[in-house]
Amino acid sequence: MNRPQAEPWVPADDRGLAYGDGLFETVLVRDGEPLLWPQHMARLAKGCRTLGIPMPAAAELDGLPARAGAGLKVLKLILTRGSGGRGYLPSPVAQPRLLWQAVDFLPQPQRWESGVRVRHCRLRLSVQPLLAGLKHLNRLENVLARREWDDPDVAEGVLCNSHGTLIEATCMNLFWQRQGCLETPRLDGCGVAGTLRAALMERLEIREVSMGPAALAEAEAVWLGNSIQGLWPVVRLDGADGSRHGSWKVGPVHRVLQREAHELLGYPARFTS
Amino acid sequence: MNRPQAEPWVPADDRGLAYGDGLFETVLVRDGEPLLWPQHMARLAKGCRTLGIPMPAAAELDGLPARAGAGLKVLKLILTRGSGGRGYLPSPVAQPRLLWQAVDFLPQPQRWESGVRVRHCRLRLSVQPLLAGLKHLNRLENVLARREWDDPDVAEGVLCNSHGTLIEATCMNLFWQRQGCLETPRLDGCGVAGTLRAALMERLEIREVSMGPAALAEAEAVWLGNSIQGLWPVVRLDGADGSRHGSWKVGPVHRVLQREAHELLGYPARFTS
Repeated sequence: MNRPQAEPWVPADDRGLAYGDGLFETVLVRDGEPLLWPQHMARLAKGCRTLGIPMPAAAELDGLPARAGAGLKVLKLILTRGSGGRGYLPSPVAQPRLLWQAVDFLPQPQRWESGVRVRHCRLRLSVQPLLAGLKHLNRLENVLARREWDDPDVAEGVLCNSHGTLIEATCMNLFWQRQGCLETPRLDGCGVAGTLRAALMERLEIREVSMGPAALAEAEAVWLGNSIQGLWPVVRLDGADGSRHGSWKVGPVHRVLQREAHELLGYPARFTS
Repeated sequence: MNRPQAEPWVPADDRGLAYGDGLFETVLVRDGEPLLWPQHMARLAKGCRTLGIPMPAAAELDGLPARAGAGLKVLKLILTRGSGGRGYLPSPVAQPRLLWQAVDFLPQPQRWESGVRVRHCRLRLSVQPLLAGLKHLNRLENVLARREWDDPDVAEGVLCNSHGTLIEATCMNLFWQRQGCLETPRLDGCGVAGTLRAALMERLEIREVSMGPAALAEAEAVWLGNSIQGLWPVVRLDGADGSRHGSWKVGPVHRVLQREAHELLGYPARFTS
């Protein structure tokens, strides 16, 4: 195992580059204190088990957030299987490579307050139960989906799987409230099981469901969230063709889930509206 | 565009590492002369169009095989979108990064002569038409499939998609002959459209079909092939559980397609049996 360090370069034969053979985490860190660290480590450990990559020692990982420095940071960890092997077959003695980088982060309070406009993506996520939920390095679908729009007023793109079932947004999880019940897409076929989603599900009753986009039309409130940005109310949802699919007014029902999320992340839990 | 060079390191923020946001090619090169170069460049160009990555200039690419050196080599090219962007959204001014490496290659003539034993994989390939056929850097499915066995007597693993349709092997394309007709799986939902496969389809009538594994039980001959290894007759096919699914004797019917393939690759087109 390499010692954790801010390693700015990797050899071109690293399997993370060659095959996306690895995992990553992006962690919000405030003055050296990580948020949702147990959830991040649990997801990384699950990914390591699935891919057969040895998990770095907890002592190595746990020391990283403190090295991110003062202020609000995003700590990005990449763990690859390392170099070597014969083609796709990994070397049995591969040495995993742990990379990390910390960058300043500025949240977007106006999105917490006033909500965001989002759109449906044309791309349909492929279904691969073996990899579902993991934050692995095979993210071309997310890249292609994110390239579908460049309007800066559109904050995110909603993704369905190949069966037309709602899954997530390009880098956020999706939540909604219907008939007073909180729901989020089931992620056993594709999608990334976010750490904020995991933490909210530990605190609240949130049903995992398989639903088409029509479920959103019936929703009293829709949110997008992740462990970096917090929770954004969705105020407008357009189709990939620009047609209007739904609109919502930010109201008290939105604030309940936002408060839970923002307590978890140390973000303001009081809103002006 | 970076100048082509044997660049042994990439920055950790390269999008090829972060997201598998790029493409690769592995080219057989004999004394500086590439085999199936037009097919490799056509697939790379198609991938660049799909991902929206600028294709390097032909002059840059065309000069690489000569730099691989004397003897039989595998030239591996990796083209990533380069660094930068905001999360999954690429930078509009991203500078693609072209990496290459040439390594010695020893083919396995006993596999040409006597054929190989293969098995079915448990993993089912996910269906993503947008990426089907491309040799992109998101290859975790291939890595997981290849990890399913470690018996060195098993040369390859056959992969079906999530509907149970035959697609390919972990790093080779699949061909068979049924009732005198050559067939190969249709690759419009997943799989890598190999350059040897493309070249063989230019020379011979090979039908692209969507078939389950039962098609192989009816086959007079089954082969696996790629542009590096040439064409291997399959003499035994086992299930993922070790059960016997099929067996074939290497015979004259195998040699017809092997001769075509080996003429394309400069490999021996005469066999002792």
